[in-house]
Amino acid sequence: MAPALGPRPLPNVLLASLIPVAVWFVIRPLLDPPPPLPALHTSVGFSIFAFLAALYLVPALGPSFVKANLKGRDLLKVYSDPIPESQGLICAAIYILLLILFIPFPFSNSIANLPTKGTHLEGLLGAASLHHELSVYLSSLLSLLMATLLGFLDDVFDIRWRHKLPIPLIAAIPLLMVYHAEGGNTHVVVPIPLRPLFGVLLNLGPLYYLYMALLSTFTTNSINILAGINGSEVSQALIIGISVILNDLLYLPWPIDFRIPLHLLGSQAEVDVGGPWRAGMAYGSSQLVSRHLFSLYFMLPLVGVCLGFMYHNWYPARAFPGDTLCYVTGMAFSVVGIQGHFSKTLLLFFIPQIFNFVLSCPQIFGLVPCPRHRVPRFDPDTNLLHPSTAQFSQPPSKLTTLILRVFASLRLTKLKFHPSNGAIVEATNLTILNFLLVNLGPMNEKELVQTLMAVQVSEDGDVVGFWINYEIRSQVVY
Amino acid sequence: MAPALGPRPLPNVLLASLIPVAVWFVIRPLLDPPPPLPALHTSVGFSIFAFLAALYLVPALGPSFVKANLKGRDLLKVYSDPIPESQGLICAAIYILLLILFIPFPFSNSIANLPTKGTHLEGLLGAASLHHELSVYLSSLLSLLMATLLGFLDDVFDIRWRHKLPIPLIAAIPLLMVYHAEGGNTHVVVPIPLRPLFGVLLNLGPLYYLYMALLSTFTTNSINILAGINGSEVSQALIIGISVILNDLLYLPWPIDFRIPLHLLGSQAEVDVGGPWRAGMAYGSSQLVSRHLFSLYFMLPLVGVCLGFMYHNWYPARAFPGDTLCYVTGMAFSVVGIQGHFSKTLLLFFIPQIFNFVLSCPQIFGLVPCPRHRVPRFDPDTNLLHPSTAQFSQPPSKLTTLILRVFASLRLTKLKFHPSNGAIVEATNLTILNFLLVNLGPMNEKELVQTLMAVQVSEDGDVVGFWINYEIRSQVVY
Repeated sequence: MAPALGPRPLPNVLLASLIPVAVWFVIRPLLDPPPPLPALHTSVGFSIFAFLAALYLVPALGPSFVKANLKGRDLLKVYSDPIPESQGLICAAIYILLLILFIPFPFSNSIANLPTKGTHLEGLLGAASLHHELSVYLSSLLSLLMATLLGFLDDVFDIRWRHKLPIPLIAAIPLLMVYHAEGGNTHVVVPIPLRPLFGVLLNLGPLYYLYMALLSTFTTNSINILAGINGSEVSQALIIGISVILNDLLYLPWPIDFRIPLHLLGSQAEVDVGGPWRAGMAYGSSQLVSRHLFSLYFMLPLVGVCLGFMYHNWYPARAFPGDTLCYVTGMAFSVVGIQGHFSKTLLLFFIPQIFNFVLSCPQIFGLVPCPRHRVPRFDPDTNLLHPSTAQFSQPPSKLTTLILRVFASLRLTKLKFHPSNGAIVEATNLTILNFLLVNLGPMNEKELVQTLMAVQVSEDGDVVGFWINYEIRSQVVY
Repeated sequence: MAPALGPRPLPNVLLASLIPVAVWFVIRPLLDPPPPLPALHTSVGFSIFAFLAALYLVPALGPSFVKANLKGRDLLKVYSDPIPESQGLICAAIYILLLILFIPFPFSNSIANLPTKGTHLEGLLGAASLHHELSVYLSSLLSLLMATLLGFLDDVFDIRWRHKLPIPLIAAIPLLMVYHAEGGNTHVVVPIPLRPLFGVLLNLGPLYYLYMALLSTFTTNSINILAGINGSEVSQALIIGISVILNDLLYLPWPIDFRIPLHLLGSQAEVDVGGPWRAGMAYGSSQLVSRHLFSLYFMLPLVGVCLGFMYHNWYPARAFPGDTLCYVTGMAFSVVGIQGHFSKTLLLFFIPQIFNFVLSCPQIFGLVPCPRHRVPRFDPDTNLLHPSTAQFSQPPSKLTTLILRVFASLRLTKLKFHPSNGAIVEATNLTILNFLLVNLGPMNEKELVQTLMAVQVSEDGDVVGFWINYEIRSQVVY
């Protein structure tokens, strides 16, 4: 019953040495003198525990998943051993449980107020807004937990592809309800080029709620549809999570002062990021600091579980994430984007996913036939992946032909034509994975996921640079 | 694949007439002049919707459950059609979703403050404590959602009986964390006879958290172990829910004045329950009113879904609740008991469950052999249920013999002895269902569940009477 493909061995001694480090970070806020950002220390400690828990629990619970019929075979391998599926559930459980256990650290008066005994740092959360923040934190947890439950239901009931697109909307309801109950701000900062038209701040009213709901649907589904090869879902989540963390760190009050050499990015100005009294790029705004701290509390343990899970999901995968992982990570990004009020920055980190989504549209909306799986085709003789294709049983409509011809001229797809009437008979499936294979030639699964990761890293790196550049110009009004 | 046993037909016309009633209740707070307890109206409306949703969704989703292998056969029937299992998940989903959609009604400033425009009633929640209340409400939702997820995991992974006893502890963590973060009160009111020893208020400190954790474990498991015959789980939840509601209603500011004729219960005093300025038995304490309103918000829709589900779970059952229903209902009772600070009253409603639990202890703790199912034995010829038995493969220990002999002398079990050495070779399983059959003789499944319900109703009814009597004596200090 157990898969012949055993779990990947773990360097136990090396990992055991992480436990005291994690414990130190967790209890650091309780030691005197307290650090300037006490709860952030605990969050780092919890994230190390999240990493270790995912690393050990994923293989340990594998056989139970296989026994409960939560298993699948790897479509791109020569063997057909059953591999535990939906193990993102373990990651989600660790993640949410740690976030719940974390509650007293930033929100309990006895712990959270410690730093005010000693030096009071500007730009830090005061006790007054703790109650409000706690509601927001709890509503985020509710949304994450709903996403987990819905993702797992999706895995168990195997809901059809197109039917499940709106499911994340349900998980976003707690966010929206509490946002409303707390007298939520529905103003957005207008991007500089549009300010002559709309002014600096625009009240979107109910449209803002629609935007938040759609954001969570997008972040969830966009990770889910960029799936299919070992490590693709979890590596995206990992890279986006790290990008958000890097962006958050820029807004914290650092004990040291440092300048980002923006002239390397072609800008005249330089940005002063450090210094406790400037609160980083937050420029002393306690609201900005607390928003980005909030984001860090959610992103650090997420990166922890993703890293632990990736060890087992890496090529050749010993564990599959299932929809559960995509749902919970997608919702986590929405949560920080919405509650941290940086959803536009967040979307910039999703450019590869947006590209994949736009590319997929003709198949999602039924213009091009959509096979059940759009993963690349595996050639067992060479161990290489080739672009998979969608077949046209009858000549496509004029609209479809036009779209596919445009896509083909942009090298987004490769077409095959009927030898006599010239109609399209075959197109490579419209996903970023097939797009990479069409343009870079066949490669093996490991190379493909590495290429995908490289695309995501370089894009997200550019965004951080671009965003810093942009932020300093609009800082005045933010 | 679909069960030959079709879903129970629904009186559509009759039910359709409930929709406008529900809509009126939901929107009533928005109409001028607002009623004194606006959110309570909405809660009643939502509860009617909860009832209708459970009534229609349970049979509609049955085939999907069977298809996903969430099915079981009814052990106490002659037929062996697959019946959808774990459908408590549908009830839990409706319940929690409605509780989330309900958030703006009591907690949004724009709606919740309406009554203060007109007449301000003493004993009602002011806007100041709304933020605090919202955190408490959200942590309760988190615990309910975790209970749902854990119950469903229990159904999917089929966790072993004894291993799953501590699972509800996990679901209680959000309650405890937020209770702590909000600077939770760990004082308890000491019962009158013990006041000379401990004073009127006793600070339990960390023990209070232990008590809360154990309470949720108890309420969840006690419903789960009193399972096995059609309608037994949901009818318990329904009766306890209605009992809690009746108890809550005594504390509300009623527009009319009424007296409970306590002399019927042998008391000298009479209790004045009505009148808006007295806030019912809360005697003008806004805290007591808001606690019992909170409890009503959770209990009314629970009764709604339970009633809808019971229609399909009633003998002969067309749907099974699974562990999910037991977990979510048990956690709901804990939530209101803890957050409403009436856990002692709550436990009084659980006396049949406490009886069943104490009775079960020798089997839970391994003194008496515990077969996988302890449900009564079904005789297909007569359609009657008989007490089921546990067999001793070897003579029991002295302790076990002693306990069983005491139980037998109290008519709690029936023993069989070895003809030669006199050792116990068989005992009826130690559950309240077998206890009823031992004492009242064999009966059919419908009669047994009705007897169980009668026991619960008469006991809970006594409690309400007793409690009123008790409350007026301790009222002065509460």
